[in-house]
Amino acid sequence: MTELDESRAKPQTDDVDEDIYAENGSIRSDFLAMVGAAIADRDLLFLRQNVASLHESELGDLLESILPDQRLALVKLLGNDFDLTALTEVDEAIRLEIVDQMPNEQIAAAIGELDSDDAVYILEDLDQEDREEILAQLPFTERVRLRRALDYPESSAGRRMQTEFVAVPPFWTVGQTIDYMRDEEDLPESFTQIFVIDPTFKLLGIVDLDRILRTKRQVKIETIMRETNYPIPADMDQEEAAQLFEQYDLLSAAVVDENGRLVGILTIDDVVDVIQEEAEEDIMRLGGVGDEELSDTIPETSRSRVPWLLVNLLTALLAASVISLFEATIEQIVALAVLMPIVAGMGGNAGSQTMTVTVRALATRNLDIYNAWRVVRREAGVGLLNGIIFGILIGIAAGLWFQDVNIGGIIAAAMLINMMAAALAGIMIPLLLDKVGADPAVASAVFVTTVTDVTGFFSFLGLATWWFAIS
Amino acid sequence: MTELDESRAKPQTDDVDEDIYAENGSIRSDFLAMVGAAIADRDLLFLRQNVASLHESELGDLLESILPDQRLALVKLLGNDFDLTALTEVDEAIRLEIVDQMPNEQIAAAIGELDSDDAVYILEDLDQEDREEILAQLPFTERVRLRRALDYPESSAGRRMQTEFVAVPPFWTVGQTIDYMRDEEDLPESFTQIFVIDPTFKLLGIVDLDRILRTKRQVKIETIMRETNYPIPADMDQEEAAQLFEQYDLLSAAVVDENGRLVGILTIDDVVDVIQEEAEEDIMRLGGVGDEELSDTIPETSRSRVPWLLVNLLTALLAASVISLFEATIEQIVALAVLMPIVAGMGGNAGSQTMTVTVRALATRNLDIYNAWRVVRREAGVGLLNGIIFGILIGIAAGLWFQDVNIGGIIAAAMLINMMAAALAGIMIPLLLDKVGADPAVASAVFVTTVTDVTGFFSFLGLATWWFAIS
Repeated sequence: MTELDESRAKPQTDDVDEDIYAENGSIRSDFLAMVGAAIADRDLLFLRQNVASLHESELGDLLESILPDQRLALVKLLGNDFDLTALTEVDEAIRLEIVDQMPNEQIAAAIGELDSDDAVYILEDLDQEDREEILAQLPFTERVRLRRALDYPESSAGRRMQTEFVAVPPFWTVGQTIDYMRDEEDLPESFTQIFVIDPTFKLLGIVDLDRILRTKRQVKIETIMRETNYPIPADMDQEEAAQLFEQYDLLSAAVVDENGRLVGILTIDDVVDVIQEEAEEDIMRLGGVGDEELSDTIPETSRSRVPWLLVNLLTALLAASVISLFEATIEQIVALAVLMPIVAGMGGNAGSQTMTVTVRALATRNLDIYNAWRVVRREAGVGLLNGIIFGILIGIAAGLWFQDVNIGGIIAAAMLINMMAAALAGIMIPLLLDKVGADPAVASAVFVTTVTDVTGFFSFLGLATWWFAIS
Repeated sequence: MTELDESRAKPQTDDVDEDIYAENGSIRSDFLAMVGAAIADRDLLFLRQNVASLHESELGDLLESILPDQRLALVKLLGNDFDLTALTEVDEAIRLEIVDQMPNEQIAAAIGELDSDDAVYILEDLDQEDREEILAQLPFTERVRLRRALDYPESSAGRRMQTEFVAVPPFWTVGQTIDYMRDEEDLPESFTQIFVIDPTFKLLGIVDLDRILRTKRQVKIETIMRETNYPIPADMDQEEAAQLFEQYDLLSAAVVDENGRLVGILTIDDVVDVIQEEAEEDIMRLGGVGDEELSDTIPETSRSRVPWLLVNLLTALLAASVISLFEATIEQIVALAVLMPIVAGMGGNAGSQTMTVTVRALATRNLDIYNAWRVVRREAGVGLLNGIIFGILIGIAAGLWFQDVNIGGIIAAAMLINMMAAALAGIMIPLLLDKVGADPAVASAVFVTTVTDVTGFFSFLGLATWWFAIS
C-alpha cells in the first residue's frame, strides 16, 4: 500500500487537465494553486466548472489538501453547488470544522439530496441540538427514515444502511417490474438488486438485475427470486456484516428489523470502507495507538498515547526491578550490563513476530480450537529452532567480544530460554485474551514484552550469578 | 476484527442444520464429526447433500478444519461434485496439497467450469509442466483466454480479471440488448454492467443494468452509456486498481490492453480480497513477519523469520557497544544498569506509535508533501509533551527508588531527549524510506528501534558520566 510513486490510471480523455492527481497520488500542485487563486478572486465560474464537478472523493482529497481558511471560503462560495457527500470522504476533524461553520438551513437542504447512509454519516457526528434542528427541517418521511437509522447503535448495520431501495411484490411479472422501473421517477440513484416483499414489508427474496434482464416479460418475479440466505439484522455489528459480505461475495444485502421486515440495504462500497477501517484499527492497536486521526492536535494526540506509554512504564519498572536483584553480580562483571539488553530485545522481537501472526489469524478467523494446538506446537518449534540459531550466534559473538567462554555460554543459554518464552507468550497471550473476550490487538504487546523482558533479564543475570557462584 | 464470540447471522430457514458455523465463527464440531464419519463410511449420499451443496467459502473453511487425510479422501469421494472454486478460499499450502493429488484430467474438467479469474488463481500456483498439461486439455478459446491472463505479471489487474463479460455495439437499442440477453445462453453467471465496444473491441462506454431497466426499448445504447473514466490497464498493479475501486466506489471496471481494447473486467469481490491482503501485508511487515501462512512448517516459518531477527541482532549489538563505552561509570553506579532499559524501552514504544501512524498514513495516501511538515511538527510537539510527562514521572520514581536526586534528574533529562528522538525517528524514517522507494512497513521498525536504543543508552549513560564527573 505504500508505493506512492507509481503512475495512476489516467482518465482517457483528450483534456489532460481532468486528472487532478500527480504521479505520486497527491493532488497536483498547479491545480491547488489555481483553486487557491480562484478562491481568493471569488472566481465562481472556475470553481463551478473545475471544483463542483469533481467526484466526491476527489473533492474530499482537495478539501484535505487546502488550508482551513480556504476550505470554509470554498464551501461558502460554492453554496448549493457544494456536494455534501465529499464530507464523508474527509477526516472527522475537517468534517466537523466545515459543518460547524455552515448554517443549519444549508445543511438541511443539502442533506435532503444525499443518500440516507451518507446523511446519517454526517448527522451522527453533530451534537444533539444541531442534529435535531436539521432533522426538523426535513420532509416527514425523510426525517423518520434518518431518525430510525440514527436510533440503531453506532457501528451497527442499521447505521450504515441505505434506506432507499426498490421493492416489488412476488406476484408481479418481469414485464410489470420493468415497466414500473421505466415509469417511476423516485428510484435510488443506482442499484443492482431488487427486493421482493409481502404487504407488511417482510422480506421474501431477492432478484439480481441481470436475472430480470435475462427473463421473459410474462414470468412471475416469485419464480426467479432467490432466497436471501444472509439477511442482516439492523443491530448487527458492521464488522460482522462485513465478514458476511466477504465470505459470500455479496454486492448488497437486505437489512431487516427484529420482525424480519426490510428496513434498508447495505452495499459493498460501504462494506469496503468498514473492512479498511477494521484492518486499520488492528494495525493501530498493535502499534499502541488508539483512534487518532492525522488532523488531531498535539494535546489530543498526546492524551491518546499516554495510557499505552504509562502501562509500558510500569512493565519497564518491573523489568528494572528484576535487574536490581542482580546488582551485586553486575558490579563484579560489567559485561553483563552491556549484553543483557540483547537477550531481552531479541526475545521481544521474536515474541512480536509470533504475536502478529496470532493476532491476525484470530482476526481473520483462521485460528480456532481445531488448529490452535497445532499452531502452538509449531510456534514452540520455531522458538526452539531460532533460539538455537541465535543462541549460537550471540554466544560466539559475546565470547569473542569479552574473550570469555563462560559469558558466551551463559548468553547462549539465556537466548535459547528467552526465544522459547517469546514464542509461547506470543501465541498463548493473544489466545487467552481472545478467550476471555478482550481484544488481543490492544493488550497482547504489553504482556508479551513483559514476559520477554523479565525472562530475558532473569535468565541471563540469574544464570550468570549461579554459574560464577559455583565456578 | 477480533470479537469471535459474537453470534453470526443465522440463515432464516426452518432447517437449523443449515448453519455449519458455531457461535464463535468456527465450524460446528458436530458437523465436523458427521463429515468425518461420512468420509470414513464413504457415505456419498450424505456428502453430496451436505458438503457438495455448501457455498464455496464454507467448503473452503471445512477443508481447512478437517485433517489432511480427510481432505484428500473428501475430494476423491466427491469427484466431479467437488467445486474447485473452494480452493480459492483456502491457504496456499492446502490448495497445492489437494491439487497435487488430483489427476490433471480431473483438474482440467473442473477448471473448464470455473470463472476465468478463479481458474487463473488456481493455475498460477501450479508448476509449469502441470499447468501446460491442463491447459492443453481445455477448449481453444478457453485456453487462449487463460494463457493471456497468465501472461500478465503476478499481482496485476490482468491476472485478477474475469474474461467473461457482456459487450454490445453502441447502435443497438435497449430493446435489442434485452432481447439478446434473454436469448443468449452463454452469458456470465452474474453481472452488473454491460460494456459498449466498437468492432475492434475498443471500449466506448459502460451501461449499468439499472440504467437499461429504466430506459424505454427504442432508446439507443450510445445515448445512455457513460464514459469509462477509470479503465484499468491490464498490467496495472492490483493494489493500485483496488485504490481506484475504493476512491470511486466502483462495482466493476473494464480492464484494457495497451491499445485500449477490452480484455476483461475486474469486480469488487476480487478487489475486497486485494484490500484485505494488502492490509494484512502491512500488519505482517510491521510485525517483522514475511509472507508466511498458518500452514507453513516449522523450518519454513523459522527461515522466513530469521532475516528480520538477524538484522535486529546487529542493531542490538550496536546498542550494546554504546553501553560498553560507559562500563567504567556503570561499575561505579550499578543503578544505571538497572534503569537504562527503561529509557531505551520507553523510547522504543513512543517511536513505534509514531511510526505506526506514519506508515498507515503513507499507505492510505493521507500523508503527502502538503501536510508532511505539519505532521512532523505535530509529532515533535507530542514527543516534547510526552517527554516532559514521562521524564517527570520516571525522574520522581527513580529518585525515590535509589534515594538520589541526581539519578532522578539524569533519567528525567534522558527520557525527554529519547522521547523527542523517538518522535522524530518515528516520522522521518518512514518518510525517507518512502521517498527513496523502499517499503516503510518493512524497514522502519529496525531503524526506529536502533535510534531509540542508541539515543536512550547514550543520553542516559552519557549524561550520568558527565554529571558525576563534574559534581
